[in-house]
Amino acid sequence: MIQVAVAGASGYTGLELLRILLRHPEVTITAVTSEQHDGKPVNEVFPGFVDTGSLVCRSLKSADLAKRADVVFTALPHGTAMQTVAEVVDAGKRAIDISADYRLHDLATHEKTYGTHARPDLLAKAVYGLPELHREAIRGAKLVANPGCYPTGAILALAPLLREGLIDPGAIIVDAKSGVSGAGRSASVEMLFSEIHGSIKAYKIAEHRHTPEIEQELSEVAGRPIVISFTPHLVPMDRGILSTIYVTPKQGADIAGAYAAAYKDEPFVRVLPHGQVPSTGHVLGSNYALIGWRSDPRTGRAVIVSAIDNLVKGASGQAVENMNLMCGIPETTGLTQLPLFP
Amino acid sequence: MIQVAVAGASGYTGLELLRILLRHPEVTITAVTSEQHDGKPVNEVFPGFVDTGSLVCRSLKSADLAKRADVVFTALPHGTAMQTVAEVVDAGKRAIDISADYRLHDLATHEKTYGTHARPDLLAKAVYGLPELHREAIRGAKLVANPGCYPTGAILALAPLLREGLIDPGAIIVDAKSGVSGAGRSASVEMLFSEIHGSIKAYKIAEHRHTPEIEQELSEVAGRPIVISFTPHLVPMDRGILSTIYVTPKQGADIAGAYAAAYKDEPFVRVLPHGQVPSTGHVLGSNYALIGWRSDPRTGRAVIVSAIDNLVKGASGQAVENMNLMCGIPETTGLTQLPLFP
Amino acid sequence: MIQVAVAGASGYTGLELLRILLRHPEVTITAVTSEQHDGKPVNEVFPGFVDTGSLVCRSLKSADLAKRADVVFTALPHGTAMQTVAEVVDAGKRAIDISADYRLHDLATHEKTYGTHARPDLLAKAVYGLPELHREAIRGAKLVANPGCYPTGAILALAPLLREGLIDPGAIIVDAKSGVSGAGRSASVEMLFSEIHGSIKAYKIAEHRHTPEIEQELSEVAGRPIVISFTPHLVPMDRGILSTIYVTPKQGADIAGAYAAAYKDEPFVRVLPHGQVPSTGHVLGSNYALIGWRSDPRTGRAVIVSAIDNLVKGASGQAVENMNLMCGIPETTGLTQLPLFP
Amino acid sequence: MIQVAVAGASGYTGLELLRILLRHPEVTITAVTSEQHDGKPVNEVFPGFVDTGSLVCRSLKSADLAKRADVVFTALPHGTAMQTVAEVVDAGKRAIDISADYRLHDLATHEKTYGTHARPDLLAKAVYGLPELHREAIRGAKLVANPGCYPTGAILALAPLLREGLIDPGAIIVDAKSGVSGAGRSASVEMLFSEIHGSIKAYKIAEHRHTPEIEQELSEVAGRPIVISFTPHLVPMDRGILSTIYVTPKQGADIAGAYAAAYKDEPFVRVLPHGQVPSTGHVLGSNYALIGWRSDPRTGRAVIVSAIDNLVKGASGQAVENMNLMCGIPETTGLTQLPLFP
Repeated sequence: MIQVAVAGASGYTGLELLRILLRHPEVTITAVTSEQHDGKPVNEVFPGFVDTGSLVCRSLKSADLAKRADVVFTALPHGTAMQTVAEVVDAGKRAIDISADYRLHDLATHEKTYGTHARPDLLAKAVYGLPELHREAIRGAKLVANPGCYPTGAILALAPLLREGLIDPGAIIVDAKSGVSGAGRSASVEMLFSEIHGSIKAYKIAEHRHTPEIEQELSEVAGRPIVISFTPHLVPMDRGILSTIYVTPKQGADIAGAYAAAYKDEPFVRVLPHGQVPSTGHVLGSNYALIGWRSDPRTGRAVIVSAIDNLVKGASGQAVENMNLMCGIPETTGLTQLPLFP
Repeated sequence: MIQVAVAGASGYTGLELLRILLRHPEVTITAVTSEQHDGKPVNEVFPGFVDTGSLVCRSLKSADLAKRADVVFTALPHGTAMQTVAEVVDAGKRAIDISADYRLHDLATHEKTYGTHARPDLLAKAVYGLPELHREAIRGAKLVANPGCYPTGAILALAPLLREGLIDPGAIIVDAKSGVSGAGRSASVEMLFSEIHGSIKAYKIAEHRHTPEIEQELSEVAGRPIVISFTPHLVPMDRGILSTIYVTPKQGADIAGAYAAAYKDEPFVRVLPHGQVPSTGHVLGSNYALIGWRSDPRTGRAVIVSAIDNLVKGASGQAVENMNLMCGIPETTGLTQLPLFP
Repeated sequence: MIQVAVAGASGYTGLELLRILLRHPEVTITAVTSEQHDGKPVNEVFPGFVDTGSLVCRSLKSADLAKRADVVFTALPHGTAMQTVAEVVDAGKRAIDISADYRLHDLATHEKTYGTHARPDLLAKAVYGLPELHREAIRGAKLVANPGCYPTGAILALAPLLREGLIDPGAIIVDAKSGVSGAGRSASVEMLFSEIHGSIKAYKIAEHRHTPEIEQELSEVAGRPIVISFTPHLVPMDRGILSTIYVTPKQGADIAGAYAAAYKDEPFVRVLPHGQVPSTGHVLGSNYALIGWRSDPRTGRAVIVSAIDNLVKGASGQAVENMNLMCGIPETTGLTQLPLFP
Repeated sequence: MIQVAVAGASGYTGLELLRILLRHPEVTITAVTSEQHDGKPVNEVFPGFVDTGSLVCRSLKSADLAKRADVVFTALPHGTAMQTVAEVVDAGKRAIDISADYRLHDLATHEKTYGTHARPDLLAKAVYGLPELHREAIRGAKLVANPGCYPTGAILALAPLLREGLIDPGAIIVDAKSGVSGAGRSASVEMLFSEIHGSIKAYKIAEHRHTPEIEQELSEVAGRPIVISFTPHLVPMDRGILSTIYVTPKQGADIAGAYAAAYKDEPFVRVLPHGQVPSTGHVLGSNYALIGWRSDPRTGRAVIVSAIDNLVKGASGQAVENMNLMCGIPETTGLTQLPLFP
């Protein structure tokens, strides 16, 4: 059994990690942390976890995670995770960081986006944990930077097309719509039920911090710098990201072929037949990503739509996928749950 | 492997059965029926079922379920299920009926509530499939009548108290609130998104058809006729039933003791400490039932609250639980998924 | 024109007051306060108020409301309102208090429920602002305590029956379901979108602070002490309170007659024919209260259902209704907007 | 008083017309039709319309609208409206058609989009009822084709920029997100609550019938053929359309200036300061359109966001605005209600 710890267990990504790990056949959870619920049994924090037995939340400070686990998941706020991850890696254990602290390879870009970085040395060693792009590197990694939710949906849709040079690299627009759980579980007026329900809004237009992360990965597969327009929206639902992506395919581009080549053996990506597009309801609570698209001869553009559950493939499910890879067990272990509908 | 068939696979309870059965380690699905989607692969009916392979919907007429499966689940409308169930049982196979066709033991009550019954002989043999009350009978049953969603939530909360004679049997009020999936998946104006969203309503006050079903089971455990007030409400959410139940405990009644005695070894029922009550969000997508209660010395009443997912413990999960019992495999097999939150 | 001020304009009841008052033909808003938005124009606080012109939020301390308005509405938290109301009344102006600070006539009950009261002298003079019960007193009042949202729905449904002695006064159960805006607009984890959406819960069972308020008014109309069971629930919707009320009518009780006598000339209450009950969607954004009921011969009980918009008839609309009465203009002025559907 | 009739009063746009017209100070409603509710009083069809008195639904056939009203609103399905409108206009009365039957000036485009047209002569005379573009023509019109909901949001955002030649006319992408009421009130599985709630989807990519309508109006203001990418999405909310629009401004384009010139005196359009964008919650239940935008120097694009309530400015409110213009009364009469929040 793999001994794992979850730092930051009472947020939405932390609870989602617990939901998956508590039923993972190869895992024993040896420690969970929560500042807010220090000392409380997990099933008191969330009564739906009916059989967590003696698992009790500890404060991060006292938890000594590196000693208590082989793999530590950090579901902590950006900035806070940085140090915990470093301690784990310095102690020779593996870290899977769900925060953004180790995602951007370029230090200058990181510091412009998120502020100073305490451990540029580790930043250079972190592997970007999108298995569909970096599976082999993840297998050998000590530190995996788990992708952001928006980047997961956008990169999976665009990477095959850019790798094959099928689309105009200067004409990419990602219009993304997310459920609200992605905003986290901190008290705020902006995320109150009545501020969100019955309304949709765009936010952080032309300045969302996931933009450089998407561009980093797309540039790498394209072999040239990619700059995109990225607009996130907040939708009155709990989970799910729908990315509607506008591209301009080159003459004769074989989009279907590129997707088939990229994903026909991928366990968690499914490409729909031309003209069919997924909704977020098709992936609710599952680790699968669905991709569909439709060409528009009238405009010369194609519209690609990808759907993921932001808390699963967009966060905690993908983190467990990375753990499976790092630990040499089958990648799908504990992750094949089908979506809830409705 | 148990060969199972699902009749009526494209409704909400049918799809939920598929969701569970497709990941059940002891089950092979050999046939699914859908009149509306006759001939379509299941993963075209619902793209979220990503790996259903060659499973194709057939019309009920042509499916010959009794020949193709050891256990047949009927997730068909009331009245329609009756005949299919009979064919299965007559052919010596096992049937688990999610409709109401075989739930009421008393023929007169059935006919008053649902209309004439084609097979009173089978009605007399059907076992009411609430494992917490009838586990042994279910193990040996050929025909299990799977409980209704409202009855499951109400009976689990009330049976221990009535069995022990702890409450006034004439002062029971069940005020239940349900998500909308319980209304099924037929086209109707009343169930359109915009009719339901942003509003709550009571319906079928003093005349809902689940009332005699609740009373049948409560009367049996109480050993005397029980008549209750039952008011269902429709809440703008997909899943979940919250039953708020008003009772008048007798002097010195040990409610906590009665619940502990009834449920301490039950795999799918959890009772919260006095004063804590569950929300439906605590059971979303899971087969667990949570029960909490609070005494009110001011009024002499106690308020009991139970929460289930109407599609899981209230329908398809419980149906699989019954299958597990009928087939002699561990009752929890394939059913231990924890709730989604949020 | 009546010069009015709104203290606490950026909460949900405050904004609702502005929505109504900005279109009220007899009103000029001369001051609004908001600690959080001190110095900001109102149309920056909420861009949907497109033509608020030069109206700017001030801090309560600096606003000097008693000098700037004839009528001051206090949409402040309980406890905070107390002092502002007192200053207004002491200065000879009229106050309409939407908080609970002046609702309970009995000082001991107030202090047990809400803590100490700074101005018992004013408490004794405050008029409970439910026009259907106290219209004449409101007309002459200097200080109106605007009713709570739950009490408005419950009292309107029960008062006519208790006044006429038609029901068993010891067997009243109010099971109420509220939209989330009633919880106010303060940052909290419990009211985050993802905590509320897709789930229903009961809260403060047997201890909600609106219970003594309901009992105060019902006891007064009944001419004897009334004790009720009251259970509030939080429903995933923005607005609306549905009260499902269980009563035991006496032999031959003429419920229809009692309602007709009480409400046939009331401008904001409508009683539906026997057997029809309202949903909260029937009153969304309007000041109307709808009441329906159904007798249940099987149990000897009757079920009454009332629906109001908690922010309008349950708060700010009723506050303006009280202002209209206090200022001698037609009671319905500015309040006849029909509900949004959907 | 203007005598008006509403054909198709029981759908969402029809009910919204009634909501507005019942409180319009210059209007008397003389007839309403509903096939489904023929013979029923309006307040039985929707109990929230508390004081509709003797207004009773009639079948369209028997209603003889042209005789009973000066202005007839047709809130009927596409195709059905065509004949009713013709009868009204032939009889010398005014028609405001909320269907799409008279919106496209070009017969070939109409027939390709919606099928054959029975009255091409009237099609040629119909005025496209967007007051911000065609106010003078509307004043003199006998037949106004009320704009579609998506076109209203998109055209208001784009027209000023295209008129001034500020943006690349070949690089316009409209990614629109709509509440569900726009889909109408017919029974269908696809619009059931549980199909929509908790999920977002794109639909009719590259083939939505509002595309030629948007292009017709934009081409007219641009003075050249405009072809756009238009992708509608269905969001789990009742009302509201958010249009996120990607454009490529020319060097030095004064977007703020163009909007100010176009809208500074418009009663129902508000433009936010640069960088602020509206949500649909800012216009819920109101006839106002809000527009915001943000330039993105990194990509050279600008992102424009417009928000309307699809049932008000996107349908019935705008229809009444057109009626006001046609009848020579102030354009804002009966339409200044502020948005509900929340």
